[in-house]
Amino acid sequence: MTDSFEAMWAELAAIGKDPSTGGYHRGGWTPTERACTEWFTTQCTARDLTLESDGLGNLVAWWEPSADLGRSPESGSHSADLGRSPESGSPSADLGGGAGLHSPSAFPSSDRGAREARARSGVVTGSHLDSVIDGGAFDGPLGVVSALAAVDRLRAEGFVPSVPIGVGAFVEEEGSRFGMPCLGSRVATGVLPASKALGFKDRSGVPLAEALSELGIDPAGVGPSPLLERMGTFVELHVEQGRALTAPVGVASSIWPHGRFRFTFTGEANHAGTTLMEDRHDPMLTYAMTALAANKQARLAGARATFGRLSVEPNGTNAVPSQVTAWLDARAATDEVLQSLLSAITRQAVERAERDGTSVEVTPESVSPIVEFPSGLRDRLAAVLDDAPVLPTGAGHDAGVFSDAGIPTAMLFVRNPTGVSHSPAEHAEMDDCLAGVDALAAVLKDLAK
Amino acid sequence: MTDSFEAMWAELAAIGKDPSTGGYHRGGWTPTERACTEWFTTQCTARDLTLESDGLGNLVAWWEPSADLGRSPESGSHSADLGRSPESGSPSADLGGGAGLHSPSAFPSSDRGAREARARSGVVTGSHLDSVIDGGAFDGPLGVVSALAAVDRLRAEGFVPSVPIGVGAFVEEEGSRFGMPCLGSRVATGVLPASKALGFKDRSGVPLAEALSELGIDPAGVGPSPLLERMGTFVELHVEQGRALTAPVGVASSIWPHGRFRFTFTGEANHAGTTLMEDRHDPMLTYAMTALAANKQARLAGARATFGRLSVEPNGTNAVPSQVTAWLDARAATDEVLQSLLSAITRQAVERAERDGTSVEVTPESVSPIVEFPSGLRDRLAAVLDDAPVLPTGAGHDAGVFSDAGIPTAMLFVRNPTGVSHSPAEHAEMDDCLAGVDALAAVLKDLAK
Repeated sequence: MTDSFEAMWAELAAIGKDPSTGGYHRGGWTPTERACTEWFTTQCTARDLTLESDGLGNLVAWWEPSADLGRSPESGSHSADLGRSPESGSPSADLGGGAGLHSPSAFPSSDRGAREARARSGVVTGSHLDSVIDGGAFDGPLGVVSALAAVDRLRAEGFVPSVPIGVGAFVEEEGSRFGMPCLGSRVATGVLPASKALGFKDRSGVPLAEALSELGIDPAGVGPSPLLERMGTFVELHVEQGRALTAPVGVASSIWPHGRFRFTFTGEANHAGTTLMEDRHDPMLTYAMTALAANKQARLAGARATFGRLSVEPNGTNAVPSQVTAWLDARAATDEVLQSLLSAITRQAVERAERDGTSVEVTPESVSPIVEFPSGLRDRLAAVLDDAPVLPTGAGHDAGVFSDAGIPTAMLFVRNPTGVSHSPAEHAEMDDCLAGVDALAAVLKDLAK
Repeated sequence: MTDSFEAMWAELAAIGKDPSTGGYHRGGWTPTERACTEWFTTQCTARDLTLESDGLGNLVAWWEPSADLGRSPESGSHSADLGRSPESGSPSADLGGGAGLHSPSAFPSSDRGAREARARSGVVTGSHLDSVIDGGAFDGPLGVVSALAAVDRLRAEGFVPSVPIGVGAFVEEEGSRFGMPCLGSRVATGVLPASKALGFKDRSGVPLAEALSELGIDPAGVGPSPLLERMGTFVELHVEQGRALTAPVGVASSIWPHGRFRFTFTGEANHAGTTLMEDRHDPMLTYAMTALAANKQARLAGARATFGRLSVEPNGTNAVPSQVTAWLDARAATDEVLQSLLSAITRQAVERAERDGTSVEVTPESVSPIVEFPSGLRDRLAAVLDDAPVLPTGAGHDAGVFSDAGIPTAMLFVRNPTGVSHSPAEHAEMDDCLAGVDALAAVLKDLAK
């Protein structure tokens, strides 16, 4: 067990760091992400937390309130009372098939009483261990490491929770491998059907089902997660991703509506040297105009629009492209503004396509309406934290998915001095991180008292 | 031996055809390109042509004028008179290391007389077998198949050349794998040093030296090609790539100046949801503006400018890119117009970069000045072909490289009814292709009489 925030942070920060950029690429179920998850399970095991996994690989490690479940002190890390055989009581670091991990879905039906006792009683905190491509160290891992450090803090103080406290890590939050943000929480809550998710392909064309099978995980086990049965409250601590937070720690009010839209611009491949400019149907021009229009429209609307991912066919220097596929990430303060932003961009794309003799097709890949975190819980956290500032965010989070699913949810933000995120340059000061641990410990103490 | 143009065309057109697009990707030294080359060697062997290869894999198959070299009729396809051992006289279809192929560089030095007899005496015709990514069937292979068909035609007529006639296939003309157009001819003429070429990497990061080694080809053998010692004249037949040729066959006057320039736009990666539009340094915007500017400037100059290849870092939907690399293909009727076009595009890119808080770096990857084919040879061909039309082209060709190296060179074009090229839709009518064979046979007969 690594016993300080700083030490845990140093261990995790070393995993998968790209020496050339200083960034990380920990896509879901890739070796670097698996190494982070293995580190997490090792830490949970060393803390005698009861680690549970669902079929997709979302993890929650429970600090059981021994009083509530009537356990003797020395059996604190076992769960025989939940109908499991003793030999399955020790979590394993083997994450391939989740072998050795507790699977809450395996409860015998006769344990209905135990299940009901668990229902919605726990307070879960945590975040995710995956990253965007060449992302920073903080987005995700800060919430996980802070959660472990907060549990350590409460235990050191001798605090005994009245309800279970869970430390969670949810898979593929960034969607950097399979294109769907919050994949783990969306499948867990059932808002994304397993059958659809398993068909998602990564950039090499590998479907999720195959990626799981390769790791020895049975795709048949993917679906709504029994882990959530016990999640009475969820609190996610996260590094802030703009420059709006000037105090060390703040509380989230809402998550902006957010959509990913695939723009497919289709023209006609041709020779770059011999084809008259007037004879071309060049989808790159339609795309270029659309990218500039998106930027302008977002500025006018006080919103965000980004084309950060592109795919060009055939992508040869001496060929006019036949097709350009571009992904628009658009966010705004309200659902109405987001819709009108998308309409304005699409209209300009279509107009330009007519000029270029190309065509454009817009496909929504994921659209998340605004998430307003429940005001009662939000105000309770702000009060515990001596009137910490309350602010919205443009970033999507698993917290938004859990909140939409009806789980009372809140978020804490740790100050980001530069506002840079999704970049190797993402940073938070250690003092602010430690203030985040203090705040999270105070919040958990309040919620589990 | 496949004994008609149509039959040869059908065999070659089947190799590596992508069923989903109808196009071809035959990058240099890839399995599809190697299959085409193997087909070529089989055809040459079946015709008793003497196949020679250089260290890079450029090929010339010689129809020796038996009278000139004093051979007995039954030894017409052997080359013992050139100092080779009889057992090396039979070309092999094994193209891995060129084993079994004649290597003109292996002449014993005592054969100086024979070498001088060879020097610059031959008339070579041919083209290339590689393609762009998702290219058409005609660009390259038409010139190779037409050359074989023209030899067949002349033999059937009983024509006996007074000098050797060579059928050539030169490697990686499109530069679709290693980024350098006319790679084979540039190395062969020595204008591109072997040491530089061997370091070129394909998109997977594989250097040319390694790609050759994997095929059993010793990179130490790469360099200026002894094949050219014998190339007194070069005639390349090629499908026209615009709509300028309205007769079935035409003669080239010149090749436009042509450059490939790598534009590296550098900004700062950041979160697509939380970063204010005003706080961004987004290189995608600088690129988009530059792509539109390139199009406009090319129209104004009556030139061509194309951004057909892009690479985006980190290429994630929810990240403002840190870097966009884009390749400009620019061509114009004169060197001055090309230079002024590049200057105008670069100036607009730099101006926009200042607005975006990004930077732009422009690196010429290859720049070819105008090629004016020698007027005497050009007029001779046009006269043989009953005053065939003479026209320039915007496309680069090995013929341009050989012409620049001082080898008297000419080109024949076959009509392209749609002007589409570097695309699966590239097409020429069979009647025009057969007219091309007629024209090439007539030209060879005139040059080798």
